[in-house]
Amino acid sequence: NLKESDAEEVTNVSVAVDVFMDDPKRDPGLIIRSAKPFNGETNPRSLTCSYYTPNELFFVRNHLPVPKVDADGYELEVEGLNITNKVLTLEDIKSLPKFEISSVIQCAGNRRSDMDKFKPVSGLQWTGGAIGNAKWGGARLVDVLSLAEFCIEKYEDPSKLYLQFEGLDSDPSGESYGGSIPLSYLLDGNFQAIVAYEMNGETLPRDHGYPLRIILPGVVGARNVKWLSRITISSDESQSPWQQRDYKVFNSSVTIDNVDYSSSPPITDLPINSYICSHENGASVQCGHNIFRGYAYSGGGRGVVRVEISTDRGSTWNVVDKLITNKSNTSLGSWALWEKDIKFQTPGEVEIWVKAVDSTYNQQVETFSGIWNFRGLVATAYHRITCKVQ
Amino acid sequence: NLKESDAEEVTNVSVAVDVFMDDPKRDPGLIIRSAKPFNGETNPRSLTCSYYTPNELFFVRNHLPVPKVDADGYELEVEGLNITNKVLTLEDIKSLPKFEISSVIQCAGNRRSDMDKFKPVSGLQWTGGAIGNAKWGGARLVDVLSLAEFCIEKYEDPSKLYLQFEGLDSDPSGESYGGSIPLSYLLDGNFQAIVAYEMNGETLPRDHGYPLRIILPGVVGARNVKWLSRITISSDESQSPWQQRDYKVFNSSVTIDNVDYSSSPPITDLPINSYICSHENGASVQCGHNIFRGYAYSGGGRGVVRVEISTDRGSTWNVVDKLITNKSNTSLGSWALWEKDIKFQTPGEVEIWVKAVDSTYNQQVETFSGIWNFRGLVATAYHRITCKVQ
Repeated sequence: NLKESDAEEVTNVSVAVDVFMDDPKRDPGLIIRSAKPFNGETNPRSLTCSYYTPNELFFVRNHLPVPKVDADGYELEVEGLNITNKVLTLEDIKSLPKFEISSVIQCAGNRRSDMDKFKPVSGLQWTGGAIGNAKWGGARLVDVLSLAEFCIEKYEDPSKLYLQFEGLDSDPSGESYGGSIPLSYLLDGNFQAIVAYEMNGETLPRDHGYPLRIILPGVVGARNVKWLSRITISSDESQSPWQQRDYKVFNSSVTIDNVDYSSSPPITDLPINSYICSHENGASVQCGHNIFRGYAYSGGGRGVVRVEISTDRGSTWNVVDKLITNKSNTSLGSWALWEKDIKFQTPGEVEIWVKAVDSTYNQQVETFSGIWNFRGLVATAYHRITCKVQ
Repeated sequence: NLKESDAEEVTNVSVAVDVFMDDPKRDPGLIIRSAKPFNGETNPRSLTCSYYTPNELFFVRNHLPVPKVDADGYELEVEGLNITNKVLTLEDIKSLPKFEISSVIQCAGNRRSDMDKFKPVSGLQWTGGAIGNAKWGGARLVDVLSLAEFCIEKYEDPSKLYLQFEGLDSDPSGESYGGSIPLSYLLDGNFQAIVAYEMNGETLPRDHGYPLRIILPGVVGARNVKWLSRITISSDESQSPWQQRDYKVFNSSVTIDNVDYSSSPPITDLPINSYICSHENGASVQCGHNIFRGYAYSGGGRGVVRVEISTDRGSTWNVVDKLITNKSNTSLGSWALWEKDIKFQTPGEVEIWVKAVDSTYNQQVETFSGIWNFRGLVATAYHRITCKVQ
């Protein structure tokens, strides 16, 4: 039997317990940006090897320990305004018609280290590998909501309401990870959100939300909540710090000391971006032909219409040779991979710049000067590297 | 009776007839960019006087003579794939429930003269006044299509089909003005297109499409076809030169001599843009406080979240003091007007720069260098003016 003093000791021990001890094993190929919570990015070079990023190499962005979920006891709650509270099992979700969509997940901080070079920013120093494209299998969000007798026509102005998502991952105080999107997204029949239980044809890995995560094509990774435990129709946005504070972009004159978090809307759809994956800054290349590869992506279902390369610091731009896209209506959240044969004539240093154009003719900005923000989010200026031609 | 020689003479005379003779009278306040066809822009200074641009000052962009339409004999045809051909009268349209939305119409060439200063481009030399915001009244497009028993569920992949619009304005060969958008736009319940017969509460003026025009919120002006005569569901885009050729944006290395018109998609939704309306380049201002005003707009229903001003050539940016928007769900195509009090300390020359950020965190590019295109379209770089502080 434990005496009181023992109990105290046990308490002390439990505080010292590593709350990340149940985290899954990860592929050694991931580049670790933080161990606890685990944040690992894909080596950008791997990203262009296949249109769908392999599960084990897909970047991992965790805010908290990975919950250990027993699928048998797993419950997804659906609740909120004008909706019948409903508790769904994994079997309930799997009994709905299965859909497959392909969609990018991109961290809002992808390429933060590029912005940091312009002027320091706070946050994980991702290069261009905090992004991946996968095929996700699961039930359509609208079908899941229908099980709780959800009907969008019941709501007078869906743009004033929100769809909140809560995860099973929580901090020691019990606060769960959460995010939200405007309910009006569900009015768009082109928006094919799913409650996913498969990733690239396999069971959803633990690091990516086993047993269920929400996939919101075109929307920043932070709202694609993993280990999904609750969906709520609400007149408020998620009150989690990740919705209210962390994933907001402020004007360049705002700092951590003078920020008014209510002055900017949370990131939802992401802007146009592109990256050179095949070569790092400072890479050596040969005179003659060299194949450069990378990705381009725009959020909100906006396709990439063009990727352009400059080797003369922006004086002239040439369209890439190949643009690999998937334009089916189940792939509106996908990326474009690109390839460009560049011929170097003489030894020396040469800058390679890339920029992309999306279907609304939004383009990337030239430099980080105008888009710098203290959290280093949506780092979408031209990607520029210098190569040494041997 | 006419002899053959007389007939010949008559033919010659008819060729010499001014096909623009039936055009309406215009307000002398419009700045004429071309007289025949008539193209007149609003003085940018007038744009910020009211959230809704007055009809008589609203910019006019005509490609052809203004048709003289007898409302009694007017017919709108609805036809195409999986749809019952239907001829509708103006009374039919007016008998449908009336809706009012507010939406910007912006010419794809707005601000072309700014891009032209960077490097010459071809086309009408609009400054920043080829844009306006109005309240449009009419029948919802979906209700009009329903009269022809249109049902979007009948179509397997709407993104592979198009909604074509044809106008009554035509060239001497009989070719009508036309444009199209992907049919998938109709899947988005947030997209509130209307067949309009009113503009700011008045009967649609002749220059703006009397008796009917299509209003497509967030979509480039060119597809908001005036004097609407036919709507067609088709597997093809409109084959008109304005869809196939004129309103496409090419890479900066493309010229009129090497252009492959099939290599770029037509403009549909417009990117983020902003403009200083209150002061012209070279304007004299006083030491002390000066109020600057302008507009910002993004297409595709994306709201303007921020407008920023720099008075030190981009080193620091400050958010404007006032941002006037209409965020109701019937105003997703509207603009934001802004106001900024700028205090000048010492006499001399000072540059004022403006840029805007939309709800997807797309921002304007710094200069025209990366977005230059030979037709001078989507001229959306920072707007920069120099003021002389007295």
